[in-house]
Amino acid sequence: MGSQVKDRTPEAWKAPEPRTSFWLLFTAAQILLLAAVTLVLFWVLKFHKFAWREDPANEFYAHPVLMIVGLIFFAGEGMLMYRSLEICVKHRFYIKLAHTICHFLAIPAIVMGLITVLDSHQLRFPPIPDFYSLHSWVGLVTISLFALQFAVGFTSFIVFLCCDTNTAAFRAALVPIHGTMGLVTFLLSIVAAISGLTEKAIFSLGKDYSTILLRPESRAGIEGLVMNSLGAVLIALAIVMPFVLRQRRPQYQLVQVVENQN
Amino acid sequence: MGSQVKDRTPEAWKAPEPRTSFWLLFTAAQILLLAAVTLVLFWVLKFHKFAWREDPANEFYAHPVLMIVGLIFFAGEGMLMYRSLEICVKHRFYIKLAHTICHFLAIPAIVMGLITVLDSHQLRFPPIPDFYSLHSWVGLVTISLFALQFAVGFTSFIVFLCCDTNTAAFRAALVPIHGTMGLVTFLLSIVAAISGLTEKAIFSLGKDYSTILLRPESRAGIEGLVMNSLGAVLIALAIVMPFVLRQRRPQYQLVQVVENQN
Repeated sequence: MGSQVKDRTPEAWKAPEPRTSFWLLFTAAQILLLAAVTLVLFWVLKFHKFAWREDPANEFYAHPVLMIVGLIFFAGEGMLMYRSLEICVKHRFYIKLAHTICHFLAIPAIVMGLITVLDSHQLRFPPIPDFYSLHSWVGLVTISLFALQFAVGFTSFIVFLCCDTNTAAFRAALVPIHGTMGLVTFLLSIVAAISGLTEKAIFSLGKDYSTILLRPESRAGIEGLVMNSLGAVLIALAIVMPFVLRQRRPQYQLVQVVENQN
Repeated sequence: MGSQVKDRTPEAWKAPEPRTSFWLLFTAAQILLLAAVTLVLFWVLKFHKFAWREDPANEFYAHPVLMIVGLIFFAGEGMLMYRSLEICVKHRFYIKLAHTICHFLAIPAIVMGLITVLDSHQLRFPPIPDFYSLHSWVGLVTISLFALQFAVGFTSFIVFLCCDTNTAAFRAALVPIHGTMGLVTFLLSIVAAISGLTEKAIFSLGKDYSTILLRPESRAGIEGLVMNSLGAVLIALAIVMPFVLRQRRPQYQLVQVVENQN
C-alpha cells in the first residue's frame, strides 16, 4: 500500500460527489425545513395562542416559532442556497448575496424570539428566572455563534466587494472554517430546540406526557405527539443537512485519489 | 473569475490542513471527553448512588454514566483514533483495528445503559412508560445509527482482511459516507444527552432548578450547576469534534485549488 500516484492527468481527476444525490438530499432538506415550520405553527395554533405583553404566558409561544423560523428555517435555507447556487450560478457575488439575505432575514426572528421568552419570564407574577436551564445555555451559545458567523460572513462579503484581490487568500482560508462553524451552529440550534421542546412538554403536559403513547387520542396525547413529531423532523434534519452540505462544487475543487482509501 | 487551473504540477498541490491545528484540537477534544466522564461520575456519586434492580430509582443513575461512556467517550475516542493514527501509522490495518476496538468497547456500555433505564421504569410501582419522551426518541435513533455504523464498519473491516482488492473501490466510496454518518451519530448522542439532562434536572430538582443561579450554594444549586456544566462540556464537544474530524490525512488526499474560493 505505497502512496503512489496512479494517474496524474487532469482527466483522471474525480469530482468528489455526483450531483443526483445532491438534488435528492436538497429536496429532502427543503421538505424537512418546511415540515418543521408547519409543525411548530400547528402546535401553537391548535393548542395555544399567540399573545403580546398583556398575556406573558401565551407570549411565550411566539418563542419556539420565531426561533425555528430564524435559526432553523432561514439559516438552513441560507446554507442550502450557498451549496445549490454553486452548481447553477457562475458569479460568486449572487451566491453570496442569496446566502447573506437568508441569514439577514433570520436576525429579526431571533431577536424577537429572545424578547418574547424574556418577556414571558419577567412579566409574570412571580417572575421566572432567566438563563438557568441547560436549554437556555445551549441557546445562548448558539445565538452567539450565529452572531459571530454573521459578522465574519458579512465583513468578508463587504471586503469582497471593495478589495477583492488583496484579501482573496485570507478569505479563501476562512471558507472551510466558516462552513464547518455554520453547520455546527445549525446543529446546536437543533440541540437547543429539542431541549426546549423537552422542557416545555414536561412543564405543560405534566404527568400526561408519559401517557402520550398509551392514550394518544387524549388532548395531551395529541399535543405530545405533535411536539415529539416536530422533534423527529429536527432529528431528520440533523442527519440530512451534513450530507447536503459536504457536497462541494465539483469544478471548484478537484480531488485526485492518490491511493486506495480502503 | 474563470475556472482556470492555475498550476497543474503536483508540487503546487496544497494539503487541506496544517497539522499543528489538528493536534491542538485533538488535545482539546481529549480533555473535553475526559471532562464529560468525570462530571457525570461526580454528579452521580455526589448527589445519588448506583444501585441494581433492588432499587430501580437509583439504578436509573447508571444510565447517564453508561451512555456517556459508550456513545460519547468510546465513540469519540474511536473517531479521534482514526484521524490521529492516520498521521503516524502507515498500515491502515492498525488504524482500523484501533477504531474498531474503541467502538467495540462502547457496545456493552450502551446495552447496559439501555437495560438500566428500562429496569428503572418497569420495576417501579407504578411503572413509568418507556419511549414516550422526545429524549427517548432521539436516543433510539442514535443507538440505531450506532448499530448500523458498527455493522457497516465491521463488515467492511472483515472484508478488507479477506478480499481486499476486489472490493476496494466500493469500500473507498463508503468511507466519506461512513465518516459523515459517524459525526452525525456522535452529535445526535449529544442531543440525546442534553435533552436527557434537561428532563432529569426538571424531574429531580423540580422548582429549585429555576433558582440555581439565585442560590448556587444550595444543594439543588450545586447539583443543577454540575448538570448544566456537564451539558456545557457536551456543547463544547459538539463545536470541537467537527473541526478535528474534517482534517484529513494530507498524503492520502491531495487537493488542488483550481480557483480562488473567495
